[in-house]
Amino acid sequence: MKSSPRLRGVFSPVITPFAADLSPDASRLVRHCRWLISQDVGLAVFGTNSEANSMSVPEKMTLLDALVEAGVPSDRMMPGTGCCALTDTVELTRHAVRHGAGGVLMLPPFYYKGVSDDGLFASYADVIERVADARLRIYLYHIPQVSQVPISLALIERLLKAYPGIIAGIKDSSGDWGNTKAMLERFQPQGFDVFAGSETFLLANMRAGGVGCITATGNVNPGAIAQLYRTWQQPDADAQQKALDAVRNTFQQFPMIPALKAAVAHFAGDAGYATVRPPLVRLNPQQNADLLAALQATEFSMPGL
Amino acid sequence: MKSSPRLRGVFSPVITPFAADLSPDASRLVRHCRWLISQDVGLAVFGTNSEANSMSVPEKMTLLDALVEAGVPSDRMMPGTGCCALTDTVELTRHAVRHGAGGVLMLPPFYYKGVSDDGLFASYADVIERVADARLRIYLYHIPQVSQVPISLALIERLLKAYPGIIAGIKDSSGDWGNTKAMLERFQPQGFDVFAGSETFLLANMRAGGVGCITATGNVNPGAIAQLYRTWQQPDADAQQKALDAVRNTFQQFPMIPALKAAVAHFAGDAGYATVRPPLVRLNPQQNADLLAALQATEFSMPGL
Repeated sequence: MKSSPRLRGVFSPVITPFAADLSPDASRLVRHCRWLISQDVGLAVFGTNSEANSMSVPEKMTLLDALVEAGVPSDRMMPGTGCCALTDTVELTRHAVRHGAGGVLMLPPFYYKGVSDDGLFASYADVIERVADARLRIYLYHIPQVSQVPISLALIERLLKAYPGIIAGIKDSSGDWGNTKAMLERFQPQGFDVFAGSETFLLANMRAGGVGCITATGNVNPGAIAQLYRTWQQPDADAQQKALDAVRNTFQQFPMIPALKAAVAHFAGDAGYATVRPPLVRLNPQQNADLLAALQATEFSMPGL
Repeated sequence: MKSSPRLRGVFSPVITPFAADLSPDASRLVRHCRWLISQDVGLAVFGTNSEANSMSVPEKMTLLDALVEAGVPSDRMMPGTGCCALTDTVELTRHAVRHGAGGVLMLPPFYYKGVSDDGLFASYADVIERVADARLRIYLYHIPQVSQVPISLALIERLLKAYPGIIAGIKDSSGDWGNTKAMLERFQPQGFDVFAGSETFLLANMRAGGVGCITATGNVNPGAIAQLYRTWQQPDADAQQKALDAVRNTFQQFPMIPALKAAVAHFAGDAGYATVRPPLVRLNPQQNADLLAALQATEFSMPGL
């Protein structure tokens, strides 16, 4: 079986729409994914900003089935599959690989804190051995401020040595450029692809040999972020970066996931997109008005949504 | 339908045995649960020390089914049912209630950090509304050093007001006696039952009006801990507490879960109990020898195991 080309470019952890009864809403998800693809942004479905861990394993599998059935291209997908339970991670990963996903984004098991690299290595190794599929491409997910379980450089080195090709890269959401730089220097030459955890570091990451970014605000500003990815070697790249930063800064003044959903709801003219699952709460009316006013002030829009 | 008497006394987050292929081992679990019940210790199956979050929802339901089928009394059980995903928590909670569990121990959703009390309230409220069973008794699970999502006094107050009777109590694993004391003073008079998170605070908790403790070392030292619970008003209570502390201190010199499993494996004469799931790792041979030597030095035993 041939393996697909490596994933590169801009990906978005796609927001997951929920119906009023909080059930996952496949049709709104399909619509949003199609728009992202039309903007040249790949689909890191089931990421942190997708409220992935607020959904059960069967709910996520059903959504992925629905996307594939709707013709959303699975080779442009990097589903999040890392759970606390080894067996859940195996089930989601196997399902994603069988659907032809270009890769999977894998959190370490995140319930226990202060676990050893031996334990994390065993966890990733067990998943790889159980899935046992040469098409598997794992992107490690380093987001210590949320998972509280960091992925160390030493762990990456061990995993790359044991599973070259399968350990394909990382999303570094630490927000620590020094850490991203160390990964780029040590591991990118071995074919370990480093995605910045947001567009804040997209230009820096490309200049240092990285392959793109995976970013929450890809849900709302995909075209402009993808444009910088394609043209980062052009003279206006720094100006583009500055414009991206301004949009991101606006969203960062609000709880990110509810704000992304509120913006999509507004620009899609469909209030249904704003629903979140507990423990998150939607923006209150004042926050919603403030967000829209701030976006309007910068002439922000979501063309084609 | 009549509701059972409230849970009181000493409970143990029962270690979950795994087979060599890491599948949950129902027969060894049944054996250990029967021994704990024989020692007058209740069964907080699927707690932190049970590696509950390292198992899938179907794995936990299958284990609970097996326990009930084996005649282990469900009214002496307080299964852990709190997951990151609302729908998982609902499914496990409904299953436990239908099996007649005396209560459930419910973590807050723990993936997102820094969530609001509004979001946590909505999370518990949604579970209660969806399970919709008057037999439901929820014990909140406050273990901020692991979950990183604390349960505040303000949240308890709101929940108690909205769902009196259903919000039955708490396990306070913070290790912060000031916090436990505040819960006892503010909420125990309203019938909100406070369990200390370990036997370290058992005597203090009983003297201040609490109802017992839920403790990892209940897996290995159940008889003596239950004895202090029954006789805490006797003159030798402080001496008993001191003896319990000595045993616990020995275990705390090692990674707790692997150490509990190693001790059970040794005293049951069944090495199969020592297996853990990643990301945990079993004691290495030196640690194992050190643990057994330390226990031997205190003439520790597990009578009847």
